Amino acid sequence: MVIITKFLEFRTKGENDIKNITEDVRNALNETNLENGIILVFAVGATGAITTIEYENGLLNDFISALTRIAPKDIAYEHGKRRNDDNGRSHVKSSLLKPDLNVPFKAKNLILGTWQQIIFVELDTRPRERKIVVQIMGE
Amino acid sequence: MVIITKFLEFRTKGENDIKNITEDVRNALNETNLENGIILVFAVGATGAITTIEYENGLLNDFISALTRIAPKDIAYEHGKRRNDDNGRSHVKSSLLKPDLNVPFKAKNLILGTWQQIIFVELDTRPRERKIVVQIMGE
Amino acid sequence: MVIITKFLEFRTKGENDIKNITEDVRNALNETNLENGIILVFAVGATGAITTIEYENGLLNDFISALTRIAPKDIAYEHGKRRNDDNGRSHVKSSLLKPDLNVPFKAKNLILGTWQQIIFVELDTRPRERKIVVQIMGE
Repeated sequence: MVIITKFLEFRTKGENDIKNITEDVRNALNETNLENGIILVFAVGATGAITTIEYENGLLNDFISALTRIAPKDIAYEHGKRRNDDNGRSHVKSSLLKPDLNVPFKAKNLILGTWQQIIFVELDTRPRERKIVVQIMGE
Repeated sequence: MVIITKFLEFRTKGENDIKNITEDVRNALNETNLENGIILVFAVGATGAITTIEYENGLLNDFISALTRIAPKDIAYEHGKRRNDDNGRSHVKSSLLKPDLNVPFKAKNLILGTWQQIIFVELDTRPRERKIVVQIMGE
Repeated sequence: MVIITKFLEFRTKGENDIKNITEDVRNALNETNLENGIILVFAVGATGAITTIEYENGLLNDFISALTRIAPKDIAYEHGKRRNDDNGRSHVKSSLLKPDLNVPFKAKNLILGTWQQIIFVELDTRPRERKIVVQIMGE
């Protein structure tokens, strides 16, 4: 059993930019010789999140709409009032979705459904430089 | 430290069928000789999810009602329009809940609260054959 | 690779008491000699949850407001009817947020954003004695 820590780094376009990082995670795994184990994908920062989705434009919009129902743009946030920040809703959605996802792998392959891709969800209101931890534990 | 990968397979009855898989996960652990570690429970596919709940019928209905408030049945989904699929809401709820759950174990026992069971939530609109990964890392 | 299981125990003030447990998790890590790995933070019980947030009072209120939109206080819950419990909403929010969070560490440091703290969210309607598992896997 070993642990290998890698990082993905990229720039987002701002609010609701959803990046398909499945290939990046798969490449990180392929760079190791590990056969079986768990990959922790973790978004550093308080206004992003990691989850899975069928990466199809209509559905990405549906997902964003659901998040917006939970934390609408046009209501007052106390976070905004105190800090003059406009990203209260970004933080709320990030805390609901959470920054972590664990994906199992076996025989050197990620175990994912055919339509199940790993995504980073940019929830902040402005473009951001993002760092994602890809920590691979296995043998 | 070793990693052991097992799978649960079962058929669901379709939308909002919630399976209590706690005993299946416990059995998978008991088939190993591992004493301490982490079990990753991971739902393969983009229209299901894993979480914990007190497995009581009234509460299962309450949980489904909350999910329905986030992703109602009677609104338009772009996913549906483009693919002629009726399961846009299923995908949205799956991405919100996420497919993964990690449960610790110690002295060969899952560490769970008395009323805390592990569940698979079927969110798709039709009965499905489901495969759940139970990946046990420990010593 | 080793696994070390620790527990945090504390009393909460009841519904919506949000505890910043980042330092407790960091201290648990510092008590080991592990350099790289994953920490599973897991809330035992069916009416609490673990996630991350910028621990700032305004934002904590915003987060609670969003949870309340998903599972309002003033609607009927079937859980409540059958058991004469008043905490149907607590269970629903706990199942949505889930009890687990994985945080990576490298060179003996938690990998977290500057404003990203680890929190336990008390969702139950009364003060509770809480036990949180901090399971550290690493080398």
